[in-house]
Amino acid sequence: MGAPAVLRQPVHGGDLSGLRQAHAGDWIDLSTGINPFAWPVPELPTEAWTRLPSSDDMTALLQAARQAYGAPAEAGIVAVPGTQAAIQLLPRLFARPQGVVRIGILGPTYGEHAHVWRSMGHDVVEIDGVPGSLQGFDVLLAVNPNNPDGRGLGLPLLRRWHEDLAARGGWLILDEAFADVVPEVSFCAEAGKPGLVILRSFGKFFGLAGLRLGFVLGPEIVTGAIRVTAGPWAVSGPALQIGCAALSDTQWQVGMRDELRARARRFDQSMRERGIHVLGGTSLFRLAKIADAASFAAALRGRGIHVRVFDYEPQWMRFGLPADEAEFWRRFVLALSELRG
Amino acid sequence: MGAPAVLRQPVHGGDLSGLRQAHAGDWIDLSTGINPFAWPVPELPTEAWTRLPSSDDMTALLQAARQAYGAPAEAGIVAVPGTQAAIQLLPRLFARPQGVVRIGILGPTYGEHAHVWRSMGHDVVEIDGVPGSLQGFDVLLAVNPNNPDGRGLGLPLLRRWHEDLAARGGWLILDEAFADVVPEVSFCAEAGKPGLVILRSFGKFFGLAGLRLGFVLGPEIVTGAIRVTAGPWAVSGPALQIGCAALSDTQWQVGMRDELRARARRFDQSMRERGIHVLGGTSLFRLAKIADAASFAAALRGRGIHVRVFDYEPQWMRFGLPADEAEFWRRFVLALSELRG
Repeated sequence: MGAPAVLRQPVHGGDLSGLRQAHAGDWIDLSTGINPFAWPVPELPTEAWTRLPSSDDMTALLQAARQAYGAPAEAGIVAVPGTQAAIQLLPRLFARPQGVVRIGILGPTYGEHAHVWRSMGHDVVEIDGVPGSLQGFDVLLAVNPNNPDGRGLGLPLLRRWHEDLAARGGWLILDEAFADVVPEVSFCAEAGKPGLVILRSFGKFFGLAGLRLGFVLGPEIVTGAIRVTAGPWAVSGPALQIGCAALSDTQWQVGMRDELRARARRFDQSMRERGIHVLGGTSLFRLAKIADAASFAAALRGRGIHVRVFDYEPQWMRFGLPADEAEFWRRFVLALSELRG
Repeated sequence: MGAPAVLRQPVHGGDLSGLRQAHAGDWIDLSTGINPFAWPVPELPTEAWTRLPSSDDMTALLQAARQAYGAPAEAGIVAVPGTQAAIQLLPRLFARPQGVVRIGILGPTYGEHAHVWRSMGHDVVEIDGVPGSLQGFDVLLAVNPNNPDGRGLGLPLLRRWHEDLAARGGWLILDEAFADVVPEVSFCAEAGKPGLVILRSFGKFFGLAGLRLGFVLGPEIVTGAIRVTAGPWAVSGPALQIGCAALSDTQWQVGMRDELRARARRFDQSMRERGIHVLGGTSLFRLAKIADAASFAAALRGRGIHVRVFDYEPQWMRFGLPADEAEFWRRFVLALSELRG
């Protein structure tokens, strides 16, 4: 029996387990890029819990997703229990029959991508910045807009890369986990073309990360393989119902995009006033430059604020957007003055 | 890019999509073995939807499952989004480095097992009845109690098989999807020993198939590999909360077991009175012998009753337990007299 190689697991935010001893009261968890203003979940029909998810409900969900993401009718699309499930599956699809591929991953970015491709034995090159040439790569993977710095790749560049890769049987994989807040950077209008795979996350923008729902768009050979590999009923009944309703709620989406944008602007402004430079981000998270991020994160933890720091970049600190801005800044200032003495 | 081989997909019950034209009113769906009396889902804390599933919640769920299934403290256990997810993963764990294994599957049984092992290129032998010898098999897979006939394998036999296989590095895989209603047949007290993997389904007995929750018990090399392959947050927040509460609700479980047993007895009695022989089953489903099952299933569909028939055995018809017995028998008798003229 051959267990997959277990490499060092990437670090993630969003889990307060084990933190409770640092602060006794309520926590402000800004360690993820999940919208703190969730789409309001209505009471569900009992059948969402009791019955096996039906193919009619799946068809409706996929139709709503295709519409929301602006994907053409001919693109393949498959729902998965969270984008992470698709991230786990993708390196397996490329594992046979050719064996190992050489994949370039635009970094630094969400750590799970390099981790899973590496654990499947692929040849992973983390590319710092934007590569001039894709020569020698079978697959290029980019998170767009990027996490944690918000770097966006323009459509002309994506088009050039996709053409270059597809022309020689290669693949461009785009993780658009945060594209809901900047729909203009999405490459979904091209979905379905050979050599292009796009991942979309449901939980982040809609603030429903516990639901576990994500999508893969691409040619049917890819989405069909994921469907078969994930097996029947991979997505829960509640996720089918809620996902379909939320993705169809255009009014909420438009309003929320504006609201988050305004809040991100206010956040940056408040940081500036306190002498802290925000490097970038999306309107779901902001990346700040802070001299000793690890020490400051510890001071924030003492005030019940959980943020994300990065072992590869000791001056980076990523903040999700606080729902209660006044309370956040109150605690933030206390931690800051504590540190600055 | 190598897509997995797509074989003919197994047929399943539980999906009324496409059946609505056969009957306009309410459907009585008896095409699955899912308990029609679901554990009552309470209102969930908002965090179950909004936050990423936490490791504290996962620990609590696994503790509750271990207790409910009577598994020893040293057994590995991992939660998956429905047993089907584990069924999809298992043949992959055995795929490398030895390559193909020879697996015996006690049949006829739930079709997905043979399907997924075959689609991963393994050498699958469907064994009719109980084999005298396991010589030549690397893996033996049995559903216990079996679906659709309810055949139960005694603990002494399981112990002998397990010892035989484990002694030569082989594996016994038990799918105990319906063991909640006959806990005395469960082999979970042995979980954790080398060469033994046990699958448990949450949704069937608790009547919450839409939730997508199941468990794998075995040595840590297996459960750890499944944990890594499924990736972080594979199980939804609602499933963590509801699963933990329901698996800890011993009183409900004991009462429901009695209730289902009584209903199964009444069901068999009523069938007998109508001249129909019930071959077996569990107290979540009953398998009846009916001369032309396909025609009778069509007559039942016309009355809004959805049952499960089997292409490999044209005289078999499987019934889930009807919640409303009076209405079921009213429609059943109408369909029967229609057919018998």
